[in-house]
Amino acid sequence: MQQIRTRPLGAEELVDLDAYWRAANYLSVGQIYLLDNPLLSEPLRAEHLKPRLLGHWGTTPGLNLIYAHLNRVIRQRELSMLYVTGPGHGGPALVANTWLEGSWTAAYPTTTRDAAGMARLFKQFSFPGGIPSHVAADVPGSINEGGELGYSLSHAYGAAADNPDLVVACVVGDGEAETGPLATSWHANKFLNPAADGAVLPILHLNGYKIANPTLLARIGDDELTALFRGYGYEPCLVAGSEPADVHQALAAALDHCLDRIAEIQREARSAAATPARPGWPMIMLRTPKGWTGPRTVDGDQIEDTWRSHQVPLSGVRTDDDHRRQLESWLRSYRPEELFDADGRPVERLLAQVPRAELRMGSSPHANGGLLTRDLVLPAVAEYAVPVKSPGVEDGEPTKAFGVYLRDAFELNAPYRNLRLFGPDETESNRLNAVYAATGKAWLADRKPTDEHLAPDGRVLEVLSEHLCQGWLEGYLLTGRHGVFSSYEAFVHIVDSMVNQHAKWLKTINRLEWRRPIPSLNYLLTSHVWRQDHNGFSHQDPGFIDHVVNKKAEVVRVYLPPDANTLLSTMDHCLQTRNQINVVVAGKQPQPSWLSWEAAALHCARGIGVWDFASNDDGDPDVVLACAGDVPTMETLAAVSLLREHLPDLRIRVVNVVDLMRLQGATEHPHGLPDAEFDALFTTDKPVIFAYHGYPWLIHRLTYRRAGHDNLHVRGYIEEGTTTTPFDMVVQNNLDRYHLAMDVIDRVPALRTRAVRARQYFADQRTRHHAYVREHGEDLPEVRDWRWSDDLGQ
Amino acid sequence: MQQIRTRPLGAEELVDLDAYWRAANYLSVGQIYLLDNPLLSEPLRAEHLKPRLLGHWGTTPGLNLIYAHLNRVIRQRELSMLYVTGPGHGGPALVANTWLEGSWTAAYPTTTRDAAGMARLFKQFSFPGGIPSHVAADVPGSINEGGELGYSLSHAYGAAADNPDLVVACVVGDGEAETGPLATSWHANKFLNPAADGAVLPILHLNGYKIANPTLLARIGDDELTALFRGYGYEPCLVAGSEPADVHQALAAALDHCLDRIAEIQREARSAAATPARPGWPMIMLRTPKGWTGPRTVDGDQIEDTWRSHQVPLSGVRTDDDHRRQLESWLRSYRPEELFDADGRPVERLLAQVPRAELRMGSSPHANGGLLTRDLVLPAVAEYAVPVKSPGVEDGEPTKAFGVYLRDAFELNAPYRNLRLFGPDETESNRLNAVYAATGKAWLADRKPTDEHLAPDGRVLEVLSEHLCQGWLEGYLLTGRHGVFSSYEAFVHIVDSMVNQHAKWLKTINRLEWRRPIPSLNYLLTSHVWRQDHNGFSHQDPGFIDHVVNKKAEVVRVYLPPDANTLLSTMDHCLQTRNQINVVVAGKQPQPSWLSWEAAALHCARGIGVWDFASNDDGDPDVVLACAGDVPTMETLAAVSLLREHLPDLRIRVVNVVDLMRLQGATEHPHGLPDAEFDALFTTDKPVIFAYHGYPWLIHRLTYRRAGHDNLHVRGYIEEGTTTTPFDMVVQNNLDRYHLAMDVIDRVPALRTRAVRARQYFADQRTRHHAYVREHGEDLPEVRDWRWSDDLGQ
Repeated sequence: MQQIRTRPLGAEELVDLDAYWRAANYLSVGQIYLLDNPLLSEPLRAEHLKPRLLGHWGTTPGLNLIYAHLNRVIRQRELSMLYVTGPGHGGPALVANTWLEGSWTAAYPTTTRDAAGMARLFKQFSFPGGIPSHVAADVPGSINEGGELGYSLSHAYGAAADNPDLVVACVVGDGEAETGPLATSWHANKFLNPAADGAVLPILHLNGYKIANPTLLARIGDDELTALFRGYGYEPCLVAGSEPADVHQALAAALDHCLDRIAEIQREARSAAATPARPGWPMIMLRTPKGWTGPRTVDGDQIEDTWRSHQVPLSGVRTDDDHRRQLESWLRSYRPEELFDADGRPVERLLAQVPRAELRMGSSPHANGGLLTRDLVLPAVAEYAVPVKSPGVEDGEPTKAFGVYLRDAFELNAPYRNLRLFGPDETESNRLNAVYAATGKAWLADRKPTDEHLAPDGRVLEVLSEHLCQGWLEGYLLTGRHGVFSSYEAFVHIVDSMVNQHAKWLKTINRLEWRRPIPSLNYLLTSHVWRQDHNGFSHQDPGFIDHVVNKKAEVVRVYLPPDANTLLSTMDHCLQTRNQINVVVAGKQPQPSWLSWEAAALHCARGIGVWDFASNDDGDPDVVLACAGDVPTMETLAAVSLLREHLPDLRIRVVNVVDLMRLQGATEHPHGLPDAEFDALFTTDKPVIFAYHGYPWLIHRLTYRRAGHDNLHVRGYIEEGTTTTPFDMVVQNNLDRYHLAMDVIDRVPALRTRAVRARQYFADQRTRHHAYVREHGEDLPEVRDWRWSDDLGQ
Repeated sequence: MQQIRTRPLGAEELVDLDAYWRAANYLSVGQIYLLDNPLLSEPLRAEHLKPRLLGHWGTTPGLNLIYAHLNRVIRQRELSMLYVTGPGHGGPALVANTWLEGSWTAAYPTTTRDAAGMARLFKQFSFPGGIPSHVAADVPGSINEGGELGYSLSHAYGAAADNPDLVVACVVGDGEAETGPLATSWHANKFLNPAADGAVLPILHLNGYKIANPTLLARIGDDELTALFRGYGYEPCLVAGSEPADVHQALAAALDHCLDRIAEIQREARSAAATPARPGWPMIMLRTPKGWTGPRTVDGDQIEDTWRSHQVPLSGVRTDDDHRRQLESWLRSYRPEELFDADGRPVERLLAQVPRAELRMGSSPHANGGLLTRDLVLPAVAEYAVPVKSPGVEDGEPTKAFGVYLRDAFELNAPYRNLRLFGPDETESNRLNAVYAATGKAWLADRKPTDEHLAPDGRVLEVLSEHLCQGWLEGYLLTGRHGVFSSYEAFVHIVDSMVNQHAKWLKTINRLEWRRPIPSLNYLLTSHVWRQDHNGFSHQDPGFIDHVVNKKAEVVRVYLPPDANTLLSTMDHCLQTRNQINVVVAGKQPQPSWLSWEAAALHCARGIGVWDFASNDDGDPDVVLACAGDVPTMETLAAVSLLREHLPDLRIRVVNVVDLMRLQGATEHPHGLPDAEFDALFTTDKPVIFAYHGYPWLIHRLTYRRAGHDNLHVRGYIEEGTTTTPFDMVVQNNLDRYHLAMDVIDRVPALRTRAVRARQYFADQRTRHHAYVREHGEDLPEVRDWRWSDDLGQ
C-alpha cells in the first residue's frame, strides 16, 4: 500500500482549502435545517427551521472534502473531471458545491449566488416542490442517481470510455461497496484502454457505517482491505484521519500522486512505442469519521463517527432549545461570517478556488451529455435487407442481418468513437458476430494465442455481468454517446432495478430545461422465451416488457419485429431516438421472412397493420388473428393456412403488431392508436385471437379500455414447458397453430357446429405431435419445415 | 498462497479414483450424445445418436473430478456434505454422479442402475419430456438451479447457517464469478459463525472460458488472484494441471488440507475457552482445462482448453463419419468395459467409492430440505394485537407490532435454530428492532465498543446487498428452515431475477414426488412507495407485485394488510405456509388501526370483504369504494367521510382487499374468488372506485374477466411525485381523498348535476393544500390529523 506522507499544501493554501470545505459544510447543514435566516444574521429561532427534517448528514462532509480537493487539482492541472457520487445520500454536498462554484445558478438562474439564492437553495432541499435529499438528475454535474446504490463505478467507467482527456473521480461509499453490482465493477479496469479511454479514479470513502450497521470494508483490517484492491488490480493509497489539517495534507498528497500516476500511465500508453498493457491504476481509500465536524454527542449518545450521524443528528431543533442551541453552534463552528459577505456571496478566497468555466465539475458538458451528442452516421439500412420474393417462403436470420448493419455502423462512426455494443458474453451466440470485422472486444487482461477478437481498443464490451454491462452503457449514454445492450431475454430481469432508475432519470431530465436529451437506451433481447430448446424453464421469462411498461409512457417503447427486415428497420429507428428506453425482442434463429424491405419499413413506420397477403376478409372479417413477436407470428400464419385449407369460406384478417405501445390508447401513450383506428383494425364485435410473445395478460392490460376488448382472446407464455423442441414449446403454452385454429372455431359462433371435424383434426395433430416429439426428440418434419404457401395469397 | 505439493493417494486409490472420474465422464458424454447403444456394445451408428445435440461439455469433467474427490473425503471422514454447482451448465456431471452413487435411481426408480437405466438416463437429458441441460431441481442433491448464474455461494452460505455438522462444497464457475451477486457473496464469510454454523468450502473452478470469451479471473495472474481472495478473507490453495494423475494427487492433498483446517477452526471455535473470532477459511482455486479429456481438436480447431468446448464439441456426428468416429474414440477413451459390467452396472471398484446412505451427496436430506423442516413454534398472535376500540381512531405501527411478535418467535424457536431475518441494513429503520431483545445481528468482522446488537450468533443477517440477503434466505429455505426478508419496496426489484428462479424451482418441485415442500419465501416490503417523504422519486416503485404475479398462480401470494392487526394475522399465516412466495406490503409509519384483532383475523381469513362500519348501502349501493393497501385504505375512508358529509344520501359500500389474488377468478388462482361472490361484493352494474397501492393497471389485469369490469375505475401510483409530504404524494397521483370523492361524483350518473358544488369544493381543497404544502413544507393539519369519526358508523 502506498502510504502518502508528504505535506504538499502551503500554509495559505491549506487555510483556503479548509475555508472552502467549511463553506460547503455550512451550506450542507443549512439545507438540512434552515427555512430562513440563511446567514445566521440573527439568533436561530424555531421559525427559521424546517418543520420536517429530511436529509442525510453522515456522508456529506467527506463528499465536500473530496470536492474541494478535486477543485485544487483541476485548477493546477487544467483537468477535465467528472465527480460521480456513489454515496448518493450526500445530496447536500453536491448541491452546496455546485452553488458555491456557480454551476447551480447557471442551471437555475433564480437561485442566485447571494443571500436570497442561499435561502432558496436551503428551502428547496427535501421540500415539496424542491429536490430530493440525494444526488439526482436535478444536480448539475451529476450522472449518477444516488437513490439505489451500487452503480457509481460502472457509470464512471462508462463515462471514461472514449473520453481520453477525462478523469472521472468516483466516490464509492463503503455501504454501496457491499452491493453485488459494485463488487464486480472494480473489474472494469480490465476493459479500460489507457491509450484511447480516459481514467477513473476510485475513491473508496470508508466512513465506517451504513444506516444502522458498520460497513464490511471498514471492519476487515488494512491488510485484507489492501489485498482486496490489489487483487482487483489497483494500487491503493490510504488516507486516514480525523484532524482536518492532517487529512488535507494527506489527501492533497494522495491526489497529487494518483494524478501523476494516471498521467504517467497515459503518457506511456499513448507514446508511439507503447505496447498495450493493463496498468495498475491508482485508487484512494479515504478513512474519515462519518458525520465529521457535526455534533460529537447528542443527548448523551455519540453521534460523530457512528451510524447515528447517518441522517439528521439533531432532530428536535424546533421544540428543544438545547438541540437548537447545539445546531446554532454547529453552524457557527464553520464561521460563516468569514465565508460569505454581507450579501451572502462567497468571499474571494473561496471563488479563487473554483476552476474556470467548464472545468467546474458542476458545469462539465460530459455530465449533461446531450450537449456533446453527435448523431450517428448510419448505413443506408435498405441495403442490408434480406430479399423477400414472397412472404414467408424463405428464411432469414434477424440478428445476423442486424449484425452486418451494426458492423458498418461501427465503421462509419469509427472516427467519432461514439458507439459501443454491450453484452454478457453473448454477442457471438446472439449471432451478431459480423461486428468483429469492424471492431474487437475490449480486453486489457492477459491474452493467449488462441484468443479471438480481443483487442485493447475493442468497441464491444463483454463481461458475464448484466449489471456491469448496463452500468457501462448508462454511463456512456449519460455522457452523450450511443450504444446497444444485447442480452438473453430472461436474464435482463437482472437489471430491472437499474432500468427503473434510468427511466426515472429520463423522466426527470425531460422536465429540466437545462438538461439536453441523450441517446436512448437500446435493448436487443434475443435468445427469447420460445427458443430455450435445451436451457429450458429457467431461461424462459418474457416479463421484462411488463416491467418496463410500468414506467412513464413518454420514456418507454417496446418493439416485436417478426422477421429480419422489420428488425433492421426497428433498430435503425431506435439508434436515432433520444431519451427513451427501447426494448426490442427478436430471435436469433433462422425463421421465415415475411416482408420485403419496402413493406417492412412501411409496417414499422405504422407499428401495426393488416397483413393483406394473409387476409381474405374483404373488409369484413369473421375473425381477426392478431400477432406480436416472431414465433407467435409464424404460428398465426400457420393457423391461417390450416383454417384456409379446412374452412375456406372463413373470412380471416391478420393483424401484426411491431410497436406494442400502439395497443394503448392515444391518451395513454404517445404511440397509442386512436380508438377509431384501433376499432377499424380489430373491429368492435368480431372475435380477436391474439398470439402474443409474452405473458398474455399484458395485452389485456394494454387494451382494457378498447371497445372490442371483451372479444379479445390472448395466447402467450403461461410458464409451461421446459427442455423441448421449438414446436412442442408453443404446444405446451397453447400458442401453437392447431390451438389457435381451435380457438378460432371456438369463438366464431357460426363455426361451432360447422367445424366439428376440423376441430377434431387439429386436436389430433397436437396429440400426434406430442407423441412423436417424446419419442424422436425433434419436431415432425411437416411442422419443422412448414412455410407459408403463396397459393394462399390474395 | 498455500501450494499443496504432497501426494496423498496410494497407487490403487489413485487408479480407483481415476476410474470413478472416467465413469462419470463417460456417463456425461453419453447423455449429450446417445439415444441408444449406451455401453458401446456395438460400433456407433447414426441412429444411436440424438437428432438434436443440446448440452454443455466444457465444465463437466471438472465437476466430475471434484465430485469424485469429495466422495473420498466424505468416506474417510464420515462427512455430511452438500455439493452446490455454480457452473450450472454442468448438468451431465451431477446427473452422472448421482446415478453412479444410486441417488438418481432412489428418486426415479424406473431409471435403474443398469444398461436399461443408463439408456433412459442418456435419452432424457436435454430431451422433450426429460430434464434440462443444467443442474435443476430435478437433480437429487441440488439446491441451486444452474440456469441464471451468480447465486451458488450465497445459497451455500445459507445452507451452512445453523447446520454445524454440514460442509457445503460450493463450486464457483469462473464465468459465474464475474456476476455482481457472486462477487459480493465471498464476503458472506463475515457472517458465518464457526461455532454454531457449518462450513462452506468454495472451489473456484478456473477453466478459463465462458461461452465465447476468456474469464477475467483466469487472466489476471496468480498474484492478483491470490491477493483478491486473501482480501475477501480466505486462505486460498491453488491446484493446477492437466495431467490427471498429478491433478488427482494435488486436489486430494488440497482437500485434505482444507478439511483439516475446517475441522481445526471448528474445534477451536467450539471449545469452551473459545473467543469468537473470524478465521481465515480455506478455499481451493482449481485450474484445469475446459473440456478436459474431450477432443483436442475438431476440424483443425483447438477444442480442449478453449471456449469452443463450452457446449457440444462434435456437432456433426449424425451426418459426418469422421465426427462420429471421433466421438466413438472419445467415449472409448474412458474404457467403459472396465467401468460397467455386461449389464451396465457400475463395477465394484466404483461402488466401493460411494459414501454410505445419506452421506451420498445426491441423497443428503439437506438438499431435499422439506424432509428436515420442523414447523415453527409461533406465539399466540392475538396477544400481540393492538387494541382497537373503534375503527380508524387510534394509530398503530404495523411493522413495530410485528417486530414484537417476531421477537417472541425467535425466542420460542431458539432451541431449534431454524428461523432467521434478512435485510439490507433496514431492520432498525423498518421498525422491527424489538427482535434485538431476542437475538443479535450476525457479525464476525471487527467490532468496536460503540457497536450495538452485533453478535457472532445473531439470527438477523444484514448486509447492503439484496442479492446476498435473498441468496442466503433461499439457501436457508431450500435446506428446510424458515425466514423473512424485509426490504425497501422499490429496491426489492434488485432480486427480480432471483425470485423468478425461485418461483420456477417451486413450480418444479411441486411436480416432483420425491421433493418435500419447503417453507415459503416471505417478503415484508415496507418503506413503500407512498412514504418516500425525503427519498423521493428514485425510491418509489410498487412494481414487484406486478413482477411476481406473472409467475405460476400456485406459487404466488400477495397481501396488502391495511393496519397493524391485519399485518400480524398475515405474517402469522405466511410463516406457516410451504412452497410459496408471499409478498406482504405494509407501512412502517404510524397509521390508523381499522380492525380489532377478531375483525382483523376474520378479514384476513376471507382476504376481501365489505367494511360495514364504513358502509351505508343497505345491500344496494350507488357506488362501491374499494381499497387495497394502507395508504389507499386511509384515503378511501377519508373520501367516504367527505362524501357522507357532503352527500349524505349517497349509498356507499366499502370493500377492502388484503389478499390481492382474491381479485382473480377461481379458475386462475387458488385464492381466486368465484364470480358469484365477486359480483356480490362489487355488483355488476355500479361504479367501483378502486384505490390501489401500486400501478393501477394491475387491478385491471387481475379483473378483466369479471362481469363488472367495465365499471371499474382504478387509482394508484402513476410515477408522479417526488420529495414531498405524505398527502401531497397521493394528491400528485390522484389517489387522494378529494380526488376519490370527485371520481365518485363523476361516475355516479345521478350525482353529476346534483353534486356540482361538492365537486368544486373538493377540487378547491386540492388546490388549497398544494399551495400550503409548497409554502410550509408540511401537510395541512386537517389532513395530517384526520381520523375516521365514529359518528359515521352505522
